[in-house]
Amino acid sequence: MTQHPLPDTPAVLVDVAKAEANLARAQAHADKHGFALRPHIKTHKLPYFAKKAEELGAIGINCQKIGEAEVMADAGLRDILITYNIIGERKLARLRALHDRITLAVVADSAATIEGYAGAFTDSAHPLRVFVECETGAQRCGVQTPDEAVALARQIAAAPGLYFAGIMTYPPKGDPAAPEALLAELARALGEAGLAPPTITSGGTPSLYSGPHAPTVTEYRPGTYIYSDRMQVGFGHGTLEDCALSVLATVVSRPTGRRAVIDAGSKALAADTCAAPGHGHIVEYPDAIITSLSEEHGVIDLGQDSETPRVGELVRVIPNHVCIISNLFDEVWFLRDGQAPEAMPIEARGKVR
Amino acid sequence: MTQHPLPDTPAVLVDVAKAEANLARAQAHADKHGFALRPHIKTHKLPYFAKKAEELGAIGINCQKIGEAEVMADAGLRDILITYNIIGERKLARLRALHDRITLAVVADSAATIEGYAGAFTDSAHPLRVFVECETGAQRCGVQTPDEAVALARQIAAAPGLYFAGIMTYPPKGDPAAPEALLAELARALGEAGLAPPTITSGGTPSLYSGPHAPTVTEYRPGTYIYSDRMQVGFGHGTLEDCALSVLATVVSRPTGRRAVIDAGSKALAADTCAAPGHGHIVEYPDAIITSLSEEHGVIDLGQDSETPRVGELVRVIPNHVCIISNLFDEVWFLRDGQAPEAMPIEARGKVR
Repeated sequence: MTQHPLPDTPAVLVDVAKAEANLARAQAHADKHGFALRPHIKTHKLPYFAKKAEELGAIGINCQKIGEAEVMADAGLRDILITYNIIGERKLARLRALHDRITLAVVADSAATIEGYAGAFTDSAHPLRVFVECETGAQRCGVQTPDEAVALARQIAAAPGLYFAGIMTYPPKGDPAAPEALLAELARALGEAGLAPPTITSGGTPSLYSGPHAPTVTEYRPGTYIYSDRMQVGFGHGTLEDCALSVLATVVSRPTGRRAVIDAGSKALAADTCAAPGHGHIVEYPDAIITSLSEEHGVIDLGQDSETPRVGELVRVIPNHVCIISNLFDEVWFLRDGQAPEAMPIEARGKVR
Repeated sequence: MTQHPLPDTPAVLVDVAKAEANLARAQAHADKHGFALRPHIKTHKLPYFAKKAEELGAIGINCQKIGEAEVMADAGLRDILITYNIIGERKLARLRALHDRITLAVVADSAATIEGYAGAFTDSAHPLRVFVECETGAQRCGVQTPDEAVALARQIAAAPGLYFAGIMTYPPKGDPAAPEALLAELARALGEAGLAPPTITSGGTPSLYSGPHAPTVTEYRPGTYIYSDRMQVGFGHGTLEDCALSVLATVVSRPTGRRAVIDAGSKALAADTCAAPGHGHIVEYPDAIITSLSEEHGVIDLGQDSETPRVGELVRVIPNHVCIISNLFDEVWFLRDGQAPEAMPIEARGKVR
């Protein structure tokens, strides 16, 4: 930590060296194991780190919303996969306008979604790459069977402005072997239909180091690994020491000997829970538990009567789920050794569409 | 609902007639029962509704952050209670600058907080009104005993730039009688010390219609009542029909006969839970359950195989906890009979300091 004054609270602090070490470690792992890395920007929402990941070897980036991709394209990013069914005329018009400037890819898990892409891109100068999203256990989106995947891949391949890019999945947390068996089965079925998937893209920080295995997975899209959080540490991904983001808060009340209240509530930490107790890890008081949040208050049980922390004292909280934090604040503060904290606007924050 | 085109999804819709009916009903109740209304703006974060509440008879507004109060002052609001311990030089300087323009009040539950106010306001042209925050069961902030309240009230009354404004509490949800007994006891103790509280201010939508009782409570600060939500309906506050805010979402995937996925996840609905099952009430499919949220996906269990909703269909979701929604979006869309939806920027969104 630096001797420069810290920003007023609540504020989001990012240890840049830790974040960049997390990026570099993942890239080295991907290089060693022969799969490409396409980091998801949802966790940081900052062009700065998107570019940094590409400098380290990432082949492109992953966004979830057109609005995020627009911000990243404006900042100079040129190869963006949006892992979402893009539905409706207004979004398709924006998608087309953006694809006319850079190289996009998208996903589809229904004929209706592909019809939308086909209509919007029939006269596109360069085809839109479309992945078939396949469920591999996460119980979210995705086709359920190889037959469905083949049917959608055929529909994509037959559409003039589209190109069948391969298989995309968001795997369940836990055992990485199970989804990979399904991906291999899907790839076999597609290959037998003459539609061998050029790319098989999976994602998620929890399996980043235990999976993925080329060539079943040729591209991987982790997001949370850049900052990490209590939830990821619970999944066995590194330690609390690797967590690059914390929320700086002020103790605003000491109503009782055991209770302290900080100015970081659900508007600063979000209500997401994880396996560890409470609503975040307090670096300076590791045994204390943030027992409840209201919007602007975090209530802490110190476990026993204690003089400290005093009213006005600063504490840092490692959040349960870090991605959502980047959507709650307008800026993060970059901390670098020996330098004053630098405010970085979270440019892709709030891009809900 | 109107025939005009709806905004692209996800989007926050506000039925203005319902919101204004909720405001008017509360004001009529307060008028009838002889207590003043000072609505909390946290739920809407819009100068429009702050002014509307004052037009209907509110004596001022309640904010939680200086940043919120600054937005409201810029929009013309002139009497603002910030129900928070304001700590630290930077915030105290902003508080003083704002109080030089309008009339503020704040709270304190420690000698340290009052020392901060006293230092910043010693030469103020008009004194800063300071309430003693008292705990009445919510286990958040507030002094614990009448003796502590008397000591802090004395400290405030003795400071040149401060004025002892009375007692403030945020009561626990549930039985409104218990906190009122404590408030009466506190008022008695203060009166006996020659420091009878000019104002006794309580708050919270859950007890708005079952409490509060003048003169034990002279001012009440409800927030959520303007929009209401599933949580408030669970507390017995009106019905789902009274809920003025909903999140418009598009069905983006139908992976199975029973499962649908919408483009509203925790970034649009927040992860807050309530007594009712799932992550929000779907107006068009009241028996369906939003079983899980990731940031951009809401996963719905339809309960049985169903052709509808189809990919591309719009649904409206009444959130579990509405206040947090106003912090997630940059704008809400006002719906008025026969008029096109009007985008209203959420001017006090993200004012974390």
